[in-house]
Order: sequence, then C-alpha cells, then structure tokens
Amino acid sequence: MDASRSHRSDMAPIKVAVAGATGRMGQEVVKLIQREENLTLVGATARSKVGQDVGEVIRIGRVEVPLTDSLDDVLAQGPDVLVDFTTPDLVYENTEKAISYGVRPVVGTTGLTEKEIQELDSRCQEAGIGGIIAPNFAIGAVLMMVFTAKAARYMPHLEIIEMHHDRKLDAPSGTALKTAELISQERQELKQGHPEEKETLEGARGGYKDGYRVHSVRLPGLVAHQEVLFSDAGQLLTIRHDSLHRESFMPGVKLAIEDVMSRRGLVYGLEKILDL
Amino acid sequence: MDASRSHRSDMAPIKVAVAGATGRMGQEVVKLIQREENLTLVGATARSKVGQDVGEVIRIGRVEVPLTDSLDDVLAQGPDVLVDFTTPDLVYENTEKAISYGVRPVVGTTGLTEKEIQELDSRCQEAGIGGIIAPNFAIGAVLMMVFTAKAARYMPHLEIIEMHHDRKLDAPSGTALKTAELISQERQELKQGHPEEKETLEGARGGYKDGYRVHSVRLPGLVAHQEVLFSDAGQLLTIRHDSLHRESFMPGVKLAIEDVMSRRGLVYGLEKILDL
Amino acid sequence: MDASRSHRSDMAPIKVAVAGATGRMGQEVVKLIQREENLTLVGATARSKVGQDVGEVIRIGRVEVPLTDSLDDVLAQGPDVLVDFTTPDLVYENTEKAISYGVRPVVGTTGLTEKEIQELDSRCQEAGIGGIIAPNFAIGAVLMMVFTAKAARYMPHLEIIEMHHDRKLDAPSGTALKTAELISQERQELKQGHPEEKETLEGARGGYKDGYRVHSVRLPGLVAHQEVLFSDAGQLLTIRHDSLHRESFMPGVKLAIEDVMSRRGLVYGLEKILDL
Amino acid sequence: MDASRSHRSDMAPIKVAVAGATGRMGQEVVKLIQREENLTLVGATARSKVGQDVGEVIRIGRVEVPLTDSLDDVLAQGPDVLVDFTTPDLVYENTEKAISYGVRPVVGTTGLTEKEIQELDSRCQEAGIGGIIAPNFAIGAVLMMVFTAKAARYMPHLEIIEMHHDRKLDAPSGTALKTAELISQERQELKQGHPEEKETLEGARGGYKDGYRVHSVRLPGLVAHQEVLFSDAGQLLTIRHDSLHRESFMPGVKLAIEDVMSRRGLVYGLEKILDL
Repeated sequence: MDASRSHRSDMAPIKVAVAGATGRMGQEVVKLIQREENLTLVGATARSKVGQDVGEVIRIGRVEVPLTDSLDDVLAQGPDVLVDFTTPDLVYENTEKAISYGVRPVVGTTGLTEKEIQELDSRCQEAGIGGIIAPNFAIGAVLMMVFTAKAARYMPHLEIIEMHHDRKLDAPSGTALKTAELISQERQELKQGHPEEKETLEGARGGYKDGYRVHSVRLPGLVAHQEVLFSDAGQLLTIRHDSLHRESFMPGVKLAIEDVMSRRGLVYGLEKILDL
Repeated sequence: MDASRSHRSDMAPIKVAVAGATGRMGQEVVKLIQREENLTLVGATARSKVGQDVGEVIRIGRVEVPLTDSLDDVLAQGPDVLVDFTTPDLVYENTEKAISYGVRPVVGTTGLTEKEIQELDSRCQEAGIGGIIAPNFAIGAVLMMVFTAKAARYMPHLEIIEMHHDRKLDAPSGTALKTAELISQERQELKQGHPEEKETLEGARGGYKDGYRVHSVRLPGLVAHQEVLFSDAGQLLTIRHDSLHRESFMPGVKLAIEDVMSRRGLVYGLEKILDL
Repeated sequence: MDASRSHRSDMAPIKVAVAGATGRMGQEVVKLIQREENLTLVGATARSKVGQDVGEVIRIGRVEVPLTDSLDDVLAQGPDVLVDFTTPDLVYENTEKAISYGVRPVVGTTGLTEKEIQELDSRCQEAGIGGIIAPNFAIGAVLMMVFTAKAARYMPHLEIIEMHHDRKLDAPSGTALKTAELISQERQELKQGHPEEKETLEGARGGYKDGYRVHSVRLPGLVAHQEVLFSDAGQLLTIRHDSLHRESFMPGVKLAIEDVMSRRGLVYGLEKILDL
Repeated sequence: MDASRSHRSDMAPIKVAVAGATGRMGQEVVKLIQREENLTLVGATARSKVGQDVGEVIRIGRVEVPLTDSLDDVLAQGPDVLVDFTTPDLVYENTEKAISYGVRPVVGTTGLTEKEIQELDSRCQEAGIGGIIAPNFAIGAVLMMVFTAKAARYMPHLEIIEMHHDRKLDAPSGTALKTAELISQERQELKQGHPEEKETLEGARGGYKDGYRVHSVRLPGLVAHQEVLFSDAGQLLTIRHDSLHRESFMPGVKLAIEDVMSRRGLVYGLEKILDL
C-alpha cells in the first residue's frame, strides 16, 4: 500500500475545524473527528446555539469545543483544515477566508461556479496549501463513476438504472446525470437497441441519452442506488452503488483531510485524490 | 411431497406424440421424452423430412420414430398425450382432432382465442380427458408471475424492470404486460412516486401503468430477464426470473404431460396445475 | 381486493395499548398509531419515566398518554388490542393478562414456547377473541419465506445467500435458518452440485443443509438482506428481501391489529393472516 | 476516443491465421474473422479433417480456406497474426514458430510457464513484433478484475461470490482465485466480520482468504458469474460479471489482433492492452 495514502500515526493529529457543525453532514464530520485518533477537533461554527458545547448539542457527549458564529475566531486558532458543510450562500466566502488564514479547505457544500473554483485554486497555489471541493464524498459512488467511464470505452453498449426513495422530485438523479456526462466524454454516440424497436407503453425504454437509456425507479423503501449495465455478445458487466446512510461520506472526508495536508493547490472531485 | 405431483414410476410410461417435432421447441420436447424414463415417444409430425427418423433429423441419434405430415396417422396409434408446438394456424384444428381421438392435448402454441379455449375445454370435459394450454411453460417465470400477483396485495408500491437482448422489437415484453395484467387484478390503482416529480430526461421514469412504472432494458448480451421490485417503508422485496435457454420450458412440459393424465377438462396457464 | 383486509374507515378507531412503548420497536408502534387514522393510542407501559407523556419521551410531541409500569391500569381502560414488544421474561404473563381482560394480544416479543402458545390460543378461544404472535412482522420477509417454500416444491435446486452487517455474531442468520426449515418441509433431501466437487478453499461451498448450501456474507455497510436462488436447466428464479430499517415491521403490525379484531383464536406467524 | 484503439478502416485488412480452428474457441475466432471487415482469414490448422474447407467443417458456409495440420504451411503464407487456441502441449512450440516467421502471436491457450512467457517476449522484442498471451479474453471479466483490484485499495472490506453451473468440479473458480490474488496485491490482510462470530452451520461464512470470504454457488441454470461486494459504513459497491456464452471472448480477441499490429514485445494479460 502507498504510504502517502494514510497520515502517519506517529505524527501529531491533524487539527480540524468544522463550519456548519450542527447540520446533518456537519454532525457526521464532528463524530468522525472524535472517532479517529489522527484527527482532533479545534473549532466549530453554527448559526444558533452559540456558546454551547458542540458535542452536547449533537448528543455525543461533551467535547470541550463551544459553538461559535464567528468563522474568524475559529480560523484564528490555527486549524490545519477547515471542513465546510454549510450553504451555497456562505461557501465561497468561508473558503476564501480559510485560505487567507492558511487553513486548507475541504468543501462538501455545493453551489460554487467553475470560475469561483478556479479563483480558489489560484489562492491555494499562492498560499502554498492544498484544498479539495467535492460534490460527493462517498468513495463507492466515486469509484462507480470512474469505473463506469473506463468501462464505457471498451463496452459501449450500456444502460443506467438509478433507484431512489419516492420523495425525490427529479428524475434522473444528479448522480445519474453526472455519470452520463462522464460516459459521453469516453464513448461516441452509439444508437443502441433494435433500429425499429417500438414502445407499446410510452416511456418503457427510459430516457434517451447519446444512444443509451436511463431508467429512474422511485419506491418508498429505497435510499440512493445506481447500477450501470455494460454488455457485449454473451457477457454483462454490472457496476452498482448503494448508499444507505449519510455516514457513507465520512471515509471520503477523512481521506480528503489527510490528502490536503501534503497537496499544493485545490482540486475538484474526490476522484482527483484517488490513485486509480 | 404430494404424490399426485409425479407420475408413479411403477406405472407404464406415458405415450407421447409431438406435433411440430423439428421446430425449436419441438426438438427440445423430443429430447425431454428421450431423457425421461416415464415418457416414451410414439409419434412425431413435421412439414418436411417426412419418413426420416426424428432423432436423426434433430441429431440426437436414431429413435425409431419416423416423421410424418399426417397427424391422423400419429393419433391413430393411440398416444396418451399430444404435445403441440406448431403454428397459430394449425393449433386449433390439431387440438380438436387430438381430443376427438381421446388424446390429451398439451399445447404451447399461441394464437387461440378465449372462445376457442372454452370450446376445447368443453370437448375435453365431454371426452372425459384432461388438457392444458400454456403461453409459458417456464416454471420459474410462472412462479414469478403468481408470486408477483400475491405480493401486490400486501406491498402495492412496485415497479417492473424487464431486460432482453437488443434484437427484440417490442417494449415492454409480453411477459411484462402479462405480469402487469395480473397485478391490476390484485391491486387498485395507486399513484406512486412524488406527486410533483419531474422528468428532466423524458421517459426516465418509464412506462406508466395503473400508477406504477415499467422499464425495458435492451442490451446485446442479455437473454430474457424480469424483476419486480416491491417496497414499503424500510424494506424491499425483489422477485426476479432469468431465462437463459429454451430448455427452461421442459420441466413445465413434463409436469403438464403428467398432470393431464389424471385431469378432466382443459386448463389455461401452467399456474393452474401448480399447488401454490 | 378483499374488504376484510382493511378496517373500515367509517368505524370507530381501534383502541390500542402498547407494552414496552419506549423500546426500539415500541417507539415505532407508538408512531404508527399516531400516524394512522383508524388507530388510537389509549395506554403505554414502560419500566422507567413513569408518569411522563410517552410522546414526549420518544420525542414526537405530546400525545396525552402518560407512561405507566402497571399493565393492569392500562388494560382496565378497555383497549381493543395490546401490542407487546417487551422482553422474553414478561411476554407470557402480559399476554395471559391481556386475554383475561378481553384485550386482543398482538405480540412481537420472542421467547414463548410451543406449549405456552397453545395455552394462549385456548384462552383466546375461550374468551372469543383473536390474537397473533409473530417472530417477524416485516411483510416482505414473510412473503419471501412463504414464496420460497412454495417455489422449493417445483424448483428444488436452490441456494440461500444471506447478508448482514458485520456486528452480527451468528451465521447463518435466524431468518436463514427459519427459511431452511420451511424448505425442508416442502422439498425432500436432494444432494446438489457435482457429485465429485472439491473445495480448494475450505468452506467456499458454504454450509450444507439437506443437500443445498447456505452462504453468510458480513460487511459493515449491510443491514439485513437475504436472497434465495432457485434454478433449473436454463432458468433462475431469485427471491430477495432487503430490510433497511425497523420501521419495516410497522405495516405488518398494522395488519395484525386490524386482523385480530375479527378473528377468534390466536395464530402464530404473520403468514397465517395473509391470503396467499 | 483514442485512435490507436481501433485499426483504421482505410488500411488493408489484417491477415489472420487460426491454430486449432475447429475447437470450441477456434470456431468462434473463425466466425469473428468472417464477420469483421478489417480482418481476413488466411489459414487454419486442425488435427483432423485436413483438406476440407474450414467454413464447411464448422458449418458457416465455404470460406475457401482448407484445413491443414502443418502450421509451417500456414505461416509460410505470411499472415500478420496467428491466433492460437490449441492445447497446452502445442502452444509453446506454435508460438515460437510463429515468431520465427515474423507472425505476431495472439494466444488464448493456457499452460505456458512464467519462464516460457519471458522467452517468448524476448523473441518478440528481437523480431520487432508484438504479441499477447491472455488467460481470459472476456473484456468484461478483465474489467471486473482490474476494477476490483483498484477498489480494494479504498474499500478493503469485501467478499467474493462466484456462481457457476453445477457440473463444475472445483470451488472456488479459477477466476475467483485470480481475483483474490489481485486483491492481495492491493490490500493488506484485514480480518473482517465480528471478531467473535460463530458458524452454527459449518462453512456458512465461506472460504477464508486474507481476512475476507469467498462463496461458491453451484446451480444447474447458471453459466459463469462473479460478483465482488465492497462495503464501508452506509454504502456498498458491487462489481459483477456474467458470462453467458463463449462468444463473449471475441471482442477481446479482436482488440488483441488489432493491438499486436502496432506493439513491440509480448504482454501477458488482456488488461495490459486496455487503457484503464
């Protein structure tokens, strides 16, 4: 195994601050930091419950880190890394501020434009620090997408089936659209199916994208699942990801925290820090 | 196990004739009969290669049964059962003729109308013999459909995903449409999914049927597959059938041959002779 | 659809009491009752927090039902049904007491002996009331087991693969063992696989049971899953159940509450009240 | 798309000879060559039916290439590539001879030692030609193995389930053992499952390999399937390959024929010529 992939246990723990520490993802990040020996929590921001202990607020027991609504106060304490799971309206300012303090940003909040990401990368380069922005920290989902793109080169006949709970408004899912985009970069348009195929039930063949089809299943007991089927005469390759709990993002967040310690410049996408 | 389910081994073998013995399904039936100790082949019809040994024609070695184009000649030899895998234009006449000879029909040929099936049933009743007509002799597919209908009563949130090779013209498949029909008999219309769900890619949510969705996948390496997903808060039940070879119909044909020996009247559908 | 399957909406709500209302399952039952219009909560027992409102204790908001440690007090208020999710040491006494008050028992607690179940049935018969004891209220799991038993009659070549989280101590799971028991009742011993098959890695072929194999997968991200594969020449039937949350038991509890209102005598197993 | 991945259509077809042309795999190779415009068949060897047209022998119609038992005669005609699907006792001599004629070897026959492969590579280097030896030409299976090795780095909790027809003697399959070997190169030993887990049915947890488990399913309707499950808290990644027909090897053979035209030296494993 590549030594660079894990922070050495004989080093001092990485000091991490969390912006948005009481949100759904932020809470999981705080729990992650408390669980991992090579990470230590040094600050936490939230819009409310200022002054209360973050551990008590999220019910994991006292951790001796009070919540604050001042990101400056947190950054002034010199964390190594700031993990940001706040909101689209705050994320740019937060990340810029972190960099200005020399604190490496690990950002899971969405909403940054391509131009903003480039600017933040330049700032990281100038500051000589690393950073990462990722729309999806679930390692399994990222592997699924990377493998899908690679497989599409050699097995261009494919279909996507994504499955989610029935409270989801949009079909296909964002992950399916992102997967489709990656496929299109690797595979030329190829009209699949029988040239004269007919739908006796409209929509049965799914949504059309560059010659292949995308199917969206919505059922109450589902969480977030996607499978991509690749096929060739006599064979089938299936790559599937099941996401059952938002806890699934934490190994990716941990990897990112460790990675930015030795990186220079900011990258977009968890796949950029995986050695695939 | 129920003794009535298998023909007793101490009895004389059942004498079987095959109409359409050199067709794709007919060949499999001849092989089945040669393989099974409690069945014996006594006649075989085909449109061509008349006079040649059926075993030699279908390349399984001589079986001492010459092909004939006269069904009367075959029926006159007194078979117990006639298995018919011919064509829609022949099946009604063949079946009627078999019954008139007191020979029990086992019919896999499609194309009979509901009225014709009722007439054939009446004739079987009068003749005091059994008979079966089945659109699908794959036991696994029939179990899938029966279980699907039962499950739909208690888990009405469901979707169908059927998958076939890409030379298939129609979508959804005949099996999916038949499954949908069975579901509709057991489950009231129930609009599934989010009431305000939106397709950003038209057709992604599949074909609409009584409130649920049907998805058709077409890929070169597939054969014939269907899965029905049932869901409720926190759980998922999946019933799937994979058909990889037409040989899969033979256990159902065998069961039908044995069943009609002790039945009176003609039934439609393999499920009618299963004890579920 | 069978009208008897759902309590009529024009009738008064069914009055339900819950024993063990603050336990993991009991909490879900309280939430169920609050959610369903045809059910109303009239009493709740727990060993601690006596006197506090059960809704406040389980954090769903005040429901005006105080917790008590006296089952007699609860039963004296005349509920129609008592749902018991307590502990093996309490369940027999609780159920007997409920019947003596003319209150129909719906029991999810395990630990009752066959003899005790028979006695409780006799008491229900005498009292002219219904009751149900079920080791598993997940309708999907029950359907999986019932369908598996039926399929094993006609497709006796089968294997079981069960998959659970890696904190589980025992392999195979209780559900797999129960499934195996049901299969053994329907299918004679049949030695599967190649007669001379060899394991080059000991245990690869799984656990041996009446000629078929049982495989147990343990991984951190799994919850509770089982699939049974049935096969015959050229075809495969798969029946799978995924249980992702204990909420999955609630539709079965609701069905049981409604069912016991019109039943006489006590039944064991949710499958007994399903029309399959 | 990478232009090097497909032979340019404006070039003359690649002249291919087939050693073992009437064997099960050899027949498929002959069909492939007849099907593809950029390939042309120039010679075919077999041990029997010498002098007969290879197309007639394998029943695809006359192709004007007579079978011969002299590989020298075939090589003397100057093919670009020799595809060898013969037997372990012939493969080394055949491959060495091909190289001596300046004909690029594409070898699917097993049985070569590591030392022999190195020698053949040296000869190809000296001759300035390319060559490939691959134990598995199914692109989907190769992708499954490559992706599995990569995923094992980041999701080390995994289990392998392989499924084959019940005429297979050995468990686990060769593909599963090969997959396990690749995993071991990427992932340190990690004892999975509960430290105190107990098998109440011996073998249920499968075969033990470096801390993870391998399960072998054997059923009559199966062909050759394998899935690898990777898991982490709250998520699951599944990579599955289904091989339904030996035709599935042909896209890999085609890719290899095209690849050796521009390669120098011999590589082992189809993955070496894929850009993953």
